[in-house]
Amino acid sequence: MNIKNAEILCVGTEILIGDIVNTNAAYISERLARLGINQYYQAVVGDNPERLSDAIKGALERADLLIMSGGLGPTYDDLTKETAAACMGRKLVLNEEALERIKQRFAFRCKTMTGNNEKQAMIPEGSTVFQNDAGTAPGCAIEDFEKGKIIIMLPGPPFEMKKMFDESVMPYLQKFTDKRFVSINVNIFGMGESEVENILKDLMDSSLNPTVAPYCGNGEVRLRVTASGHDEEECRKMCLDMVDKIQKTEVGGYIYGFDTDLACTVVENYIKKGKTIATAESCTGGLIAKRITDVAGSSEMFGYGVVTYSNEAKIKLLSVKKKTLENYGAVSKETAAEMAEGVRNLSGADVGIATTGIAGPGGGSEEKPVGLVYLGISSEKGTRTVRLMLTSGRDRVRLLASTNALSEALKEIK
Amino acid sequence: MNIKNAEILCVGTEILIGDIVNTNAAYISERLARLGINQYYQAVVGDNPERLSDAIKGALERADLLIMSGGLGPTYDDLTKETAAACMGRKLVLNEEALERIKQRFAFRCKTMTGNNEKQAMIPEGSTVFQNDAGTAPGCAIEDFEKGKIIIMLPGPPFEMKKMFDESVMPYLQKFTDKRFVSINVNIFGMGESEVENILKDLMDSSLNPTVAPYCGNGEVRLRVTASGHDEEECRKMCLDMVDKIQKTEVGGYIYGFDTDLACTVVENYIKKGKTIATAESCTGGLIAKRITDVAGSSEMFGYGVVTYSNEAKIKLLSVKKKTLENYGAVSKETAAEMAEGVRNLSGADVGIATTGIAGPGGGSEEKPVGLVYLGISSEKGTRTVRLMLTSGRDRVRLLASTNALSEALKEIK
Repeated sequence: MNIKNAEILCVGTEILIGDIVNTNAAYISERLARLGINQYYQAVVGDNPERLSDAIKGALERADLLIMSGGLGPTYDDLTKETAAACMGRKLVLNEEALERIKQRFAFRCKTMTGNNEKQAMIPEGSTVFQNDAGTAPGCAIEDFEKGKIIIMLPGPPFEMKKMFDESVMPYLQKFTDKRFVSINVNIFGMGESEVENILKDLMDSSLNPTVAPYCGNGEVRLRVTASGHDEEECRKMCLDMVDKIQKTEVGGYIYGFDTDLACTVVENYIKKGKTIATAESCTGGLIAKRITDVAGSSEMFGYGVVTYSNEAKIKLLSVKKKTLENYGAVSKETAAEMAEGVRNLSGADVGIATTGIAGPGGGSEEKPVGLVYLGISSEKGTRTVRLMLTSGRDRVRLLASTNALSEALKEIK
Repeated sequence: MNIKNAEILCVGTEILIGDIVNTNAAYISERLARLGINQYYQAVVGDNPERLSDAIKGALERADLLIMSGGLGPTYDDLTKETAAACMGRKLVLNEEALERIKQRFAFRCKTMTGNNEKQAMIPEGSTVFQNDAGTAPGCAIEDFEKGKIIIMLPGPPFEMKKMFDESVMPYLQKFTDKRFVSINVNIFGMGESEVENILKDLMDSSLNPTVAPYCGNGEVRLRVTASGHDEEECRKMCLDMVDKIQKTEVGGYIYGFDTDLACTVVENYIKKGKTIATAESCTGGLIAKRITDVAGSSEMFGYGVVTYSNEAKIKLLSVKKKTLENYGAVSKETAAEMAEGVRNLSGADVGIATTGIAGPGGGSEEKPVGLVYLGISSEKGTRTVRLMLTSGRDRVRLLASTNALSEALKEIK
């Protein structure tokens, strides 16, 4: 059997009432794209047997493969396995290995297993079982090769689902597909989406394989170059040729990396050049340090960060002058510069990077409105500041300030 | 017209290939629940006119209201307005106000408007327009009161969509609904979902209005108590009665707040008691400071944070003894205790909270495996440490460590 197209159906009232964000669909979608399995449609339904059954039947009419997540829990409203098994004409049977694993898991955590956890070890008859290394509910695939239909059921909690998908479902699905897609993401910072697209419009319009698609978010633009074919090496070469063309346009100067993100690029470049960085954060409150230390291995280039939210902390930890704060205020280019120099002196790092600004919602004035942020960057080259006017709320102001700071940190050692 | 049920249809190939997470659906869903508008189904389709048209028609067969987001951009593959207008038998006309706003936006940013941005000012004839204060694409509602159907179209970028939804769409929708839902979220930390549910099973089973539903994530459990009716005050009273019953069970001791999250609760309680906190983070790398400063107003209780990722930084900034690091290692209860005391001394804060651990993927050993984290908590009561064994990957270890640290910070001043 060759799977051409798939649909994703996530189950859970908590998604429909907006209590949780459906990150599972994004994760599964990305994997399907990598396998070259098309997806034209995805949906969410609640824990209602009739609507769930309708949604499953509808999806199986359109697609070869239906991947479901959620509703495998121990509670009475978890109905995915029962409903999917009924749609495929199967009954549920006890899976001994799954039961044993659930028992062990409870023993390891010194917790008592409740009766409803046993329900999780029930599996549609004859299905391929995916054991759960991160939680209690096993996943499974019900196959009907005669009709050319497969339903895969995965647990809802993202960390359980992801582990199961990568370790068990990816190898399982590779048996059912021969088309390969290769993508290269081109990471761009400092140029807007419309501008990027205007420059690349002809290139994008004239190329069907590979395709070039722009995405924006976090103040960055990403171009996804995707080639399809039967040979991975050939696809990769097609992508690289297209990337080469993009680099030769005006956009080229704004490309900071490929298949990466800004924090990873900063960490990699600092390590490569043997440089270290230290952070002094006011308005970003630890977000830059967090984004740097999100990257495994960052301890090689990052040893010190301070969050100086109060003036006192700026004076005490960073030796910002009291007079500077009095004359220019905490949100000023003068303070940003002294913070960057201060954290560099404190830590002995090659580069000191500082933020001070008004993230809002309160604290703004006519002269210094919400969204005003100064960055300070200090290195052996000297100290410089950058003034930003950011919009669209506290979270976004903080995020964009940290993104700009990372971009400046990268420029400083280029 | 009275809207009873709605569906959400998000448009964008970038969602189907997993390039972005569909946060818009969650945001809109939460608002619909608040308005008492049921949602049984939500979907995602790509920028393909046939499938988009099929999805719109299918949704309008089932629901009174269809809310769409995405595909209003300036680029050639943005087809939402054209397709939805065709489904409702309308043509597109130029909206002068929208065009004027787009022009002003470009002038303000000193950027050149490109021809494709003008396309964004085209709106289905006779529709209600929602101007965009955060971006270029206006939203709109096409109404067919005869058939009792409304399609609302919103921009895809989340910060544009959210602002438009709260400022324009919420007041618009309130005219079409009289049922009210009131929810209270009960926030629990320190007890697992299965355990919570076992204790509350009878209460949950026997109550249809209000309903009680458990959700878990970030290592926390949340119970959502929801009452429906025509009078908001009456609904609120029904919820409060149920909350009272829950508080009287064994679960009561693990409730830390209502309609809040752990970081907000920490900030509020510290401010209320006039206490301050300082953070000293190793494995969490700024995440605790970030979560505290996510909360507007946190500057009242948080002035100092340090990220001491290297041993040198632990010694220099926090006066951790070299001998302690040599004898017990950086990941030890002894180091955690000295870090907490050190940051309290450095900052003069009432409470010092510290983390040191192995987030992974590298750095683990048999004796100190990945996931081992020590928390240090220091206050006038003395200094104590907590040992955690966390699982499921770097991001989750860091997240759970920060959640546990916030919980300990809260306990320390209770």
